[in-house]
Amino acid sequence: MKIKIATIQSRVDTDKYKNIEHFAELVASGAADGADVIVLPEMWNCPYVAKLFPEYAEPEQGDTWLAMSTIARKNSVYVVGGSIPECDAEGKVYNTCYVFDRNGNQIGKHRKVHLFDVNFGLGFHESDTLTGGDSFDVIDTEWGKIGVDICFDVRFPEGMRLQALSGAKVLFVPATFAMRTGEAHWELNMRMRAIENQLFLVADAPARVEGAVYKCWGHTMVIDPWGNVLTDMGTDEGVAITEIDLDKIDRIRAELPLLSARRTDLYTLEKK
Amino acid sequence: MKIKIATIQSRVDTDKYKNIEHFAELVASGAADGADVIVLPEMWNCPYVAKLFPEYAEPEQGDTWLAMSTIARKNSVYVVGGSIPECDAEGKVYNTCYVFDRNGNQIGKHRKVHLFDVNFGLGFHESDTLTGGDSFDVIDTEWGKIGVDICFDVRFPEGMRLQALSGAKVLFVPATFAMRTGEAHWELNMRMRAIENQLFLVADAPARVEGAVYKCWGHTMVIDPWGNVLTDMGTDEGVAITEIDLDKIDRIRAELPLLSARRTDLYTLEKK
Repeated sequence: MKIKIATIQSRVDTDKYKNIEHFAELVASGAADGADVIVLPEMWNCPYVAKLFPEYAEPEQGDTWLAMSTIARKNSVYVVGGSIPECDAEGKVYNTCYVFDRNGNQIGKHRKVHLFDVNFGLGFHESDTLTGGDSFDVIDTEWGKIGVDICFDVRFPEGMRLQALSGAKVLFVPATFAMRTGEAHWELNMRMRAIENQLFLVADAPARVEGAVYKCWGHTMVIDPWGNVLTDMGTDEGVAITEIDLDKIDRIRAELPLLSARRTDLYTLEKK
Repeated sequence: MKIKIATIQSRVDTDKYKNIEHFAELVASGAADGADVIVLPEMWNCPYVAKLFPEYAEPEQGDTWLAMSTIARKNSVYVVGGSIPECDAEGKVYNTCYVFDRNGNQIGKHRKVHLFDVNFGLGFHESDTLTGGDSFDVIDTEWGKIGVDICFDVRFPEGMRLQALSGAKVLFVPATFAMRTGEAHWELNMRMRAIENQLFLVADAPARVEGAVYKCWGHTMVIDPWGNVLTDMGTDEGVAITEIDLDKIDRIRAELPLLSARRTDLYTLEKK
């Protein structure tokens, strides 16, 4: 089964509503026409600055959510909504990806589980303002199950492995790596998670903006289960369409059986 | 703390005793002088052909074992003995790495856990003649704990993760990837296990031999916890010395805390 994936690598403005308009413009430009699913980057409606997350946060079904749902419905396309800051009734803020079906219905969401707390460069501590999610679910679609992980989640093999074992065929990873870790680890890390779990992986990043407070690596990628990079969007803004063939998963798993060769008699990896 | 690692990338002859002699010659050549540990490749005393493993197999303390122990003692060096076919009292055959201290005492062993059973190319099924091991232990040395994994074991994040969580600072991976998987996955896979577990990884392969039944990828590598390739031995036979600084592990783990950021409230990875 073949799916056309439109990845959006957008510049993030400081104005939330400009970001929402810009998303609609990119879709209206026709560059995503014919796609079965549109993918957005991490924190696409808010600059990637920890103290801004609460300020930009919306509850579920807020303005940004509604814009994504509307785009999905009007274009009859799935939307994997990158991520935006979400606030819940208790005032907690999350880094959240909403997923919509072709009718604009929310069919799943992923709150970033592993918060980006690091001490290199100027440091960055998402946990100053964010709360981590508490699940690695898979989401049913017309092509089978998919999973979502956000940025730092990709560093940890456990969560994505659990999604693969739950039947995910495509993992969507909205992510905005820093320049230093991007150069050192972005491609390697994304490709390896596709290889070890033998599935497709779509890593969607914002465009690189010179002079931004948080200058990101970019390089939105679509990767096949052998680790081949089918698309690499570089650093500029754009929309790219990549056709993936899900049948490749079974072919590769038959040639090089990895998931079935796990020594589950010796180790267990389980959700708590 | 600094350690000098001598990696041996040797050609494998069809004559087991020639392989043993050749190992002694390579060490006597002086190329490994000053090393704290000598590392050998996977199946260095036996061609990598499944039906030959039982024929070349020795019990623990057999001739090849004795040669490694003797080299360790005479040179006052640790030896991570790549791997050789081992037979037990019941006639089972394993792909086994023995580890010796500076006195020639065996301080640990690892039997390849994940057997290489694949269906691409001509296919290869280690399980035709081999039995898989049943543990991922760590081994105490004068520099702290180390772990051993053999070739296909590196495909699976679980075992190496368990070793890292048990305190391993260096993982030694005797391995002989095929040409196809070597080109596609060798460097990526080895580097990613070092990066995600934030430790040093030494992947030791036999030299590539044109016209061999099993032509291997080669590219013995020493990799630091950031994923930098400190040494890449290419495809020819040789001995290389790489100095590694174990203090780098703590520095990188402080800058980019990964092991401590695992969400153990959400998932558990355990030995059975």
